[in-house]
Amino acid sequence: MTNGKDKKDKTANKEHKEEKHSEKKIGITVKKSENFSEWYTQVCSEQGADLVDVRYGVAGFVVHKPWAFKILRRIYDLLDYEIEKDGHEPFLFPTVIPEENLIKEKEHAGFAPNVFWISHAGEEKLERRLALRPTGETAIYPMYALWIRSYKDLPLKRYQSRITVFRNEATTRPFMRGREFMFYETHDVFATHNEALAQIKTDMKIMNKVTYDTLKIPFIFFKRPKWDKFLGAVDTYASDTIMPDGKRNQCSSTHDLGHNFAKVYGVEFVDENGERKHGYQTCFGPGIYRIMAALISIHGDDNGLILPTAVAPIHIIIIPITFSGKPDVNEKVIKKCKEVEELIKKTTYSVKVDFDEGTPGYKYNKWELFGVPFRIEIGPRESESDEVTIVNRITKEKKKLNLKKVEMELNQYAEEHEKLLKKRADEYFKGNTKEASTLKEVKKIIEEHRGFIMAPFCSMEHEGEKCADKLKAETQGGDVLGVKFENAEAPKKGQKCIICGKEAKHIVYIAKSY
Amino acid sequence: MTNGKDKKDKTANKEHKEEKHSEKKIGITVKKSENFSEWYTQVCSEQGADLVDVRYGVAGFVVHKPWAFKILRRIYDLLDYEIEKDGHEPFLFPTVIPEENLIKEKEHAGFAPNVFWISHAGEEKLERRLALRPTGETAIYPMYALWIRSYKDLPLKRYQSRITVFRNEATTRPFMRGREFMFYETHDVFATHNEALAQIKTDMKIMNKVTYDTLKIPFIFFKRPKWDKFLGAVDTYASDTIMPDGKRNQCSSTHDLGHNFAKVYGVEFVDENGERKHGYQTCFGPGIYRIMAALISIHGDDNGLILPTAVAPIHIIIIPITFSGKPDVNEKVIKKCKEVEELIKKTTYSVKVDFDEGTPGYKYNKWELFGVPFRIEIGPRESESDEVTIVNRITKEKKKLNLKKVEMELNQYAEEHEKLLKKRADEYFKGNTKEASTLKEVKKIIEEHRGFIMAPFCSMEHEGEKCADKLKAETQGGDVLGVKFENAEAPKKGQKCIICGKEAKHIVYIAKSY
Repeated sequence: MTNGKDKKDKTANKEHKEEKHSEKKIGITVKKSENFSEWYTQVCSEQGADLVDVRYGVAGFVVHKPWAFKILRRIYDLLDYEIEKDGHEPFLFPTVIPEENLIKEKEHAGFAPNVFWISHAGEEKLERRLALRPTGETAIYPMYALWIRSYKDLPLKRYQSRITVFRNEATTRPFMRGREFMFYETHDVFATHNEALAQIKTDMKIMNKVTYDTLKIPFIFFKRPKWDKFLGAVDTYASDTIMPDGKRNQCSSTHDLGHNFAKVYGVEFVDENGERKHGYQTCFGPGIYRIMAALISIHGDDNGLILPTAVAPIHIIIIPITFSGKPDVNEKVIKKCKEVEELIKKTTYSVKVDFDEGTPGYKYNKWELFGVPFRIEIGPRESESDEVTIVNRITKEKKKLNLKKVEMELNQYAEEHEKLLKKRADEYFKGNTKEASTLKEVKKIIEEHRGFIMAPFCSMEHEGEKCADKLKAETQGGDVLGVKFENAEAPKKGQKCIICGKEAKHIVYIAKSY
Repeated sequence: MTNGKDKKDKTANKEHKEEKHSEKKIGITVKKSENFSEWYTQVCSEQGADLVDVRYGVAGFVVHKPWAFKILRRIYDLLDYEIEKDGHEPFLFPTVIPEENLIKEKEHAGFAPNVFWISHAGEEKLERRLALRPTGETAIYPMYALWIRSYKDLPLKRYQSRITVFRNEATTRPFMRGREFMFYETHDVFATHNEALAQIKTDMKIMNKVTYDTLKIPFIFFKRPKWDKFLGAVDTYASDTIMPDGKRNQCSSTHDLGHNFAKVYGVEFVDENGERKHGYQTCFGPGIYRIMAALISIHGDDNGLILPTAVAPIHIIIIPITFSGKPDVNEKVIKKCKEVEELIKKTTYSVKVDFDEGTPGYKYNKWELFGVPFRIEIGPRESESDEVTIVNRITKEKKKLNLKKVEMELNQYAEEHEKLLKKRADEYFKGNTKEASTLKEVKKIIEEHRGFIMAPFCSMEHEGEKCADKLKAETQGGDVLGVKFENAEAPKKGQKCIICGKEAKHIVYIAKSY
């Protein structure tokens, strides 16, 4: 490991000489079930899937390395496709926001204490400070005020993708919380509130398609309690999944902004009758970072990542099994590897042969850490056969791949991989959602890290906040996530709020958060 | 136009009412050949191809609107494809750079007076200032020092794409110079200088493939004079094209960094013999913004943009020609439009029917402004035929498209479009490259805005700078661009430097710059 290496150290030269022909130390040394936090750190690091480098030198700012970047880019692409299919057009706004715009909406101004401020250009002090965007609303809506004139300009549906935003978070963690993090935002304006609410349902469907159908990350879409809405929103809806330590991970949020921002920034239109009205606004943020964190954590196992085919940068890694002192045999093996690679390149699967130095065993471990769905092993026997050995990342089962039916068989294996990934995630999610009727039960479950807890609760309006605060204190951090957005469970007759004992109006979900 | 509109103005309501059913005013009111600067401004604005909005409210920071963003995204994709094929892996670095890293390389520290500085997080003053990256070297190379250990780690070839960088430019212009602008950078490390030089040739080939072969933007790849190299580089190579006002537009640069940065940031490796050495570094920056500016300016005509098929967000726009009071006929027209759209969707061409309100004439103008390569017109006659009318954006010629051979014929028309685009650009480029033997000739050509001028010159080393300064003064801004990187012209026997009269060592290219 290069960690902490001092470049000026004269002994380093010697150390390098010795290590020159040795393999880089890789592998995860803890079990995910026993020490999730350490497991996660290791998976993200060079000894794991080499996803990020946290040694950039500015706390909370990390380098995204190629393997992570390729996965993240695919998540962006999946979302872009759905978002554009839903009628959104892409744009790109400046990274900086003038201070007066950032704080114009009084609730939203709550972001100000956590933004980074640009004060100077060179040695010259700026007339007014510029914020690095913590999110896009206050950059974008003043322009919407210029762009929207008549009802014919509505709905206006735009998004920006592959951008980063900046918040001065107290604690940071790769893909969970960063001072600069990858972001995605749609910003829509409608003539009516009904259209805005319909968009929120569409946002939910897009999340479902990308995150659950494609990436196999189960989640519940909640309506958040009023005390936990986005700064400036009327209502916030959000999807939460359960992490291996039982905590909820918010994977997206979508906000009903009502007229709140429209009134402040002048987002207005003239309707069919010539009357000037405010637009109803929504914004949707699939949490690129949080989806990545869920992907790593929920699917991964003690050997590293496990990737769904939709985002795996490589679907199939081919490992040549060669033997020293057998150049003729090895030549055949290498030839066969290249043949199989060419064969697979003609299919929809991405493939690579690992011709690097290193033992087959080292390579197996490496590509398991990286989560590549399949590995093909080609040794002397396979080099003369129409069948090669294929190993699935989840099951580690060795199966045969008939090279004469390669696409058909790969389709079948890939389908099994996807099904199994979904099954594991679904079982895990279902198994970690429990019901409780009393605070005592909630506390017991939370202590055992059991994910979501359903419980009767008094109110989702502001008057419920006191109970939520008490719940949080009693459970060392249990939050009221909200009620299900669709098919919300109703309390049974006579069920009482687990905190105040008043009649329960809702079955809420409770979990600890990051 | 909404420009300068006062939202609080009570008369605005009335104005809106009147304009409600009228069309937005579009169109370019000047000729490109007569007033390029104004033509460019109009093409970029809402009355043109609606590429940017300059009213963001922070000088030099613009909003990239959907049409521009989609074109830019395709330019990025074209580059990503070639850059990855050449073995580069993508990564993403933080946007911020600690001050001590930015200024560590003494020449490169010349960027410091033009960077934006982050001083505070919330109300808390940062211990050390952070710069918004003006370019990536000083962010990236300290990490390379950690990542590279042995010769086996080389070559290291990485890139970042779809990012922005920040420089406090005095004057700005959409896609030419911005305080935040779209950026692309590769950063490579090699064991030997020869490999580094070979990479520079490869970078040139990639530029040639994307910018010339695909986007039909002719350019010359120069070796820059020593006095015009990148801050911290040993040598700079760059591609320049000619803009309609005769000025050169630098579309890419690639730098031979030698050991300059490696020594400062400790980018070292242990070679086969166990010896510690510095890496040879190169970096390559295709100028996304400048390529876009060239695309707009070189291909565009008095009616707006003209797009190559490789980056056109829409290849074919279908315009229904309907008549008021003829609902039966119109229904057939609309049906036919949808049929043709479905037919074309099965090909490799992207298509859209413009069903918006507005006359066909308005729509013709609009999509010509946007540079869509082909328009199909479908009226009552076409609605009952297997042939429709297709019009090319460059020639405006009306031709027939046989719907029974749609893909084949579209291929043919597209090929013609590409050929013509290339021919126009080549002729323009060639026609604006002149030779001169004396300063007087140079001055005469420069006054007439004739693009590149080839002339004999004394030296590309630092001793030539005095002559370059004098040339600039004498010609009100003529710069020595350098000598051709490959197949550089040699001075004839006895030719003298146009400034100092000493024997000429080079034929240099001269042009004014932005």
